[in-house]
Amino acid sequence: MARQPSRRVVTDDDISDEFWGQEYPPVARELLASAVSCFASKGFNATTTRDITAAVGLSPGALYVHFPSKEEVLYTIMRIGHQRVLEAITVPAAGIVEPDPGTVVAELVRRFVVWHARYHTVARVSQGLHELAALNREHYELVAAQRHMITGVFRSAVNAGIDTGDFDVSDVGGTVRAIVSLGIDIVRWYRVDGSETPDELADSYARLAQRMLGLKIRD
Amino acid sequence: MARQPSRRVVTDDDISDEFWGQEYPPVARELLASAVSCFASKGFNATTTRDITAAVGLSPGALYVHFPSKEEVLYTIMRIGHQRVLEAITVPAAGIVEPDPGTVVAELVRRFVVWHARYHTVARVSQGLHELAALNREHYELVAAQRHMITGVFRSAVNAGIDTGDFDVSDVGGTVRAIVSLGIDIVRWYRVDGSETPDELADSYARLAQRMLGLKIRD
Repeated sequence: MARQPSRRVVTDDDISDEFWGQEYPPVARELLASAVSCFASKGFNATTTRDITAAVGLSPGALYVHFPSKEEVLYTIMRIGHQRVLEAITVPAAGIVEPDPGTVVAELVRRFVVWHARYHTVARVSQGLHELAALNREHYELVAAQRHMITGVFRSAVNAGIDTGDFDVSDVGGTVRAIVSLGIDIVRWYRVDGSETPDELADSYARLAQRMLGLKIRD
Repeated sequence: MARQPSRRVVTDDDISDEFWGQEYPPVARELLASAVSCFASKGFNATTTRDITAAVGLSPGALYVHFPSKEEVLYTIMRIGHQRVLEAITVPAAGIVEPDPGTVVAELVRRFVVWHARYHTVARVSQGLHELAALNREHYELVAAQRHMITGVFRSAVNAGIDTGDFDVSDVGGTVRAIVSLGIDIVRWYRVDGSETPDELADSYARLAQRMLGLKIRD
């Protein structure tokens, strides 16, 4: 179970400039990275715009040059975070020519787990319950649509394996939710200085997902 | 994936007076229930003592009659919450005379899942990352010891099934963590007005846990 998170969670996610996208100038990217650190360490509600700007050596007003509100900063982090997850699990898997459903699901779970372990600080914000609740209605609907697409990728892969007879699943929705849930819960406890690398964790969870799906070993 | 939590999370956990224990007078129990609601809806860091007392019609100073600090209120919720989980999973299962390991783990998972679904608001506080981080060192160590005991109950049950040959597990620690993790993640998305009852969810997760353990069906 979770070890105590450090009092001041530094973003050990090693977020590159490419993460945020080219449309954000360097200062905006710094503000986003600072906001990730602040929101992850004390939550959106307890973070002030001063907290976000002070960490990058700016006055509070500097935030409004780039974002109309603290909520918009949060939404930007969530939108880009979910977009990166979607990219991570939908880029075609290299080297798999005619993938069988068990291999496809294992690869999906691997990519999902590696992403959430590697970007656990960003994901802690974008999966945060208080953070989701803090989005305005329009922004929430947009993030919900992204989440729906992510679940849809898993659901399609599971249904494909049911159709071929490789998987034995009675409750598709519940099993898909459990597989996704297992991946998301990583952000609650994962630490870069822990005993497992993202890849090791990913292999372990890929096997557990195959078992949850009742994967039959082909002769 | 998670639907948007309501703006104002009311405690729909139906916490009875017995939940908190006899040592707390009625006013202290009301303050604890109010604190659960406040911490769950906006987080410990963004909750003031005024928020907690106002909801039960008292002045901020009234809190200090019963608790020395806001942190002590949080610790009390966490300590009792974890204690109730431990009680839920360690009371002997009635009606199982000579339980086989697969049945024992299924029953454990069922009880763990039912508890976390039924008390998801309390659990959202006691599993909260910012909340764990807000405990002082001594309190954190005490809660960590409770968490260690909870994991230990699952670990023993898994090891028993490995010893009898009922389970096929290569990574005991990782598999136990995954089973516990799946149960804890319920508190992120569970809602009483959702499509599944705690019992239905528990049955589903019990079967998934048996699969993760590679339970062999006995002849």
